[in-house]
Amino acid sequence: MHAFIPGSYDPVTNGHMDIISRSAGLFQAVTVAVLHNSRKQPLFSLEEKTALLEEACALYPNVRVAAFDGLLTKAVKEAGADVLVKGIRSVTDMEYEEPMAVMNRKLTPSVETLYMPGAPEYQALSSTLVKEIARHGALTDDMVPEAVKAALEKKFSS
Amino acid sequence: MHAFIPGSYDPVTNGHMDIISRSAGLFQAVTVAVLHNSRKQPLFSLEEKTALLEEACALYPNVRVAAFDGLLTKAVKEAGADVLVKGIRSVTDMEYEEPMAVMNRKLTPSVETLYMPGAPEYQALSSTLVKEIARHGALTDDMVPEAVKAALEKKFSS
Amino acid sequence: MHAFIPGSYDPVTNGHMDIISRSAGLFQAVTVAVLHNSRKQPLFSLEEKTALLEEACALYPNVRVAAFDGLLTKAVKEAGADVLVKGIRSVTDMEYEEPMAVMNRKLTPSVETLYMPGAPEYQALSSTLVKEIARHGALTDDMVPEAVKAALEKKFSS
Amino acid sequence: MHAFIPGSYDPVTNGHMDIISRSAGLFQAVTVAVLHNSRKQPLFSLEEKTALLEEACALYPNVRVAAFDGLLTKAVKEAGADVLVKGIRSVTDMEYEEPMAVMNRKLTPSVETLYMPGAPEYQALSSTLVKEIARHGALTDDMVPEAVKAALEKKFSS
Amino acid sequence: MHAFIPGSYDPVTNGHMDIISRSAGLFQAVTVAVLHNSRKQPLFSLEEKTALLEEACALYPNVRVAAFDGLLTKAVKEAGADVLVKGIRSVTDMEYEEPMAVMNRKLTPSVETLYMPGAPEYQALSSTLVKEIARHGALTDDMVPEAVKAALEKKFSS
Amino acid sequence: MHAFIPGSYDPVTNGHMDIISRSAGLFQAVTVAVLHNSRKQPLFSLEEKTALLEEACALYPNVRVAAFDGLLTKAVKEAGADVLVKGIRSVTDMEYEEPMAVMNRKLTPSVETLYMPGAPEYQALSSTLVKEIARHGALTDDMVPEAVKAALEKKFSS
Repeated sequence: MHAFIPGSYDPVTNGHMDIISRSAGLFQAVTVAVLHNSRKQPLFSLEEKTALLEEACALYPNVRVAAFDGLLTKAVKEAGADVLVKGIRSVTDMEYEEPMAVMNRKLTPSVETLYMPGAPEYQALSSTLVKEIARHGALTDDMVPEAVKAALEKKFSS
Repeated sequence: MHAFIPGSYDPVTNGHMDIISRSAGLFQAVTVAVLHNSRKQPLFSLEEKTALLEEACALYPNVRVAAFDGLLTKAVKEAGADVLVKGIRSVTDMEYEEPMAVMNRKLTPSVETLYMPGAPEYQALSSTLVKEIARHGALTDDMVPEAVKAALEKKFSS
Repeated sequence: MHAFIPGSYDPVTNGHMDIISRSAGLFQAVTVAVLHNSRKQPLFSLEEKTALLEEACALYPNVRVAAFDGLLTKAVKEAGADVLVKGIRSVTDMEYEEPMAVMNRKLTPSVETLYMPGAPEYQALSSTLVKEIARHGALTDDMVPEAVKAALEKKFSS
Repeated sequence: MHAFIPGSYDPVTNGHMDIISRSAGLFQAVTVAVLHNSRKQPLFSLEEKTALLEEACALYPNVRVAAFDGLLTKAVKEAGADVLVKGIRSVTDMEYEEPMAVMNRKLTPSVETLYMPGAPEYQALSSTLVKEIARHGALTDDMVPEAVKAALEKKFSS
Repeated sequence: MHAFIPGSYDPVTNGHMDIISRSAGLFQAVTVAVLHNSRKQPLFSLEEKTALLEEACALYPNVRVAAFDGLLTKAVKEAGADVLVKGIRSVTDMEYEEPMAVMNRKLTPSVETLYMPGAPEYQALSSTLVKEIARHGALTDDMVPEAVKAALEKKFSS
Repeated sequence: MHAFIPGSYDPVTNGHMDIISRSAGLFQAVTVAVLHNSRKQPLFSLEEKTALLEEACALYPNVRVAAFDGLLTKAVKEAGADVLVKGIRSVTDMEYEEPMAVMNRKLTPSVETLYMPGAPEYQALSSTLVKEIARHGALTDDMVPEAVKAALEKKFSS
């Protein structure tokens, strides 16, 4: 089975890596897909986000990183994937994902969504919180991959 | 990948069959596992529950039905399965499943749990509600498999 | 429009009376329906529960009290009511009511369910909590109707 | 009883129409009220939103469409309505509506709020999701009224 | 014990004052800390927000008002406080606070977070709703402190 | 400040000990109060539950263990405590605690309730789950205090 894990990844955190690495162990192939949303103003560019993910995923031979825009279920099909995998940290996450899972299955019935519960130790981590903490120079080593930590510190050093 | 779908199945509903049939299409093998809980008083015996499930799953060649007691993650391993699949109808379901998913992964890290969101049309269905409706003779054809409808009507006809 | 407000009412609290009195002001007719559930062991008998409700509702000429068993939507029809009204104190209440509202509409499409949000001051009140407080002799005047307070104190005085 | 159903309706979806049509069957009169919020940038102008609603509601003789700004409960009174009706798709919707229901009753005690649970098949639909799907040219016939589908396709064709 | 109660306070409401006054009765010292967030556009300036809070808190000799920016847990330490106190009106509030409580304890293990449940009568109050109501000239005396009511009416009178 | 931490403690888990030990560091005195509920059938007797707690709390000189029945807020007063502390693992816990916090404050306004968020690593632990795991001989060292592990293994060895 080939899993497709979409996200903004602005930037990738160890919470994302928990879901990606466990998926790499469970599925034959994993596509980590960076959403290109021209209407939002991310901290990192699409190129930076992709490069940071590629470095963080280098350890997993069956994981590849790709960018996508357009309709999500179409991107899943084009990637040759069978299933959308969404990490779920909390009830709030699931409330947010549920309508999209229903809608995606309606648009493309052959694309199933599966939720993977995040590990408790990463439950409070989010890209938003990580950026806020980095802004105040308080990042710790277990929040983001090493290269992301360096990239965040560089962004906020000026 | 081999999925293990545990439950009380007292009795199996079309909500369960939604999860089972979609899993049959997604995974190579599926074990539907009927929990034998000697401390609860089910309406149907373990033998009846298993027989009704076997009839309902006969269509799916890669699905087998089994009973289990003892520790869930041990049963998953003994079945040769890789992943626990839980159907999620609502936020309430997820709140209930989350501690067990965390605990099961703690007991047996190699057993992952994945949640599959139930189809909206079965969201309100549960074994409990189905029994309540059957008690009042109001079951409809789209709530439970045909053999289950007959079995429920027999239980409540006396 | 004729509203049907079902419940266990074991016993009626001021939270119930908030919903009933506001419904009396909104709907032309209101049937307060006491569920007769032979599988549960209530504190008050069906007769006691009905009598306490009748006394509490005497003020509202368009409210009548009735007992029911059997299928809820059938009882609604037999009462000549158009709509089920459920008081909602919290998210937990709504999570509990939602599957039943969907199922009832499926069984009898002409019977709609409407939720009425409870007043904040009664949000923490429930028959269960009221009985627990009465057991310790700590009921206050604003928790239950006067006759219910007397009845509870009598139950727990021995 | 006269129901007032406020919303942004940017644009009206079949989820809205589920609530409106069921309300038309339940209440004597229904006012569908389009919120004019000058601080938000909608996709459709107030005139477009109103025209699309009027076309979609033409079938229901007891439904009229109106625009409003200013205080919601004042608009309810001016429309001659008795009750605010809010469609509730999920727990998230109710968490959002609850403080407003309490506050509206505080501002104008004679205006009650009733929640109507949305049909399961429209549970995942929202104006936001519909616009996102239209942007990618993937709208289906059961998501929005016919005229809305045409209007959305025109907006995103250029 | 010294409590630190952070917030945007744009402006302080009677819901905030419920938490502050009860904290003043419970803790030896209370610091009410106004978050200075240069990326948001508040209605009141930091100076106005602080002045309004100081007037509202003048009654409580053990409460002092301070502004802060930077990392929250660092501000707690610099204020000499032991514990973060967060008022919780609802499940939604707690879902929002939980990741921050976990993260703050991770950043500074000696700073505990305690949640204080808000009084039911203020459960629907928020700065956002209060500003919306003020915009329509419908504020009542029990929503905000007297000086805040005057300040809001002045803001929206032009 | 003197904290009162009530519970069933059937038996005490490391999740309870997380709340108790952090409270011991925060408050001057802590009373851990074992609820004696004659209507429930616990696994451990009141004497056993109290003894296991006393052993687990021996490290903390400012913590004492006591049994209570009767009205909770009366027990708080009799213990000379100022505040009820409840550990909160999840939204479900808070939904359960909220009505009791409101009611307790109504019964005894001077007794405040504060919620302490549990550490993420104990979020999935409960006495119920621990007993279930012990029944299958799968307890690990980080779930319960040492003496509790021995006591559980003895209970389920026969």
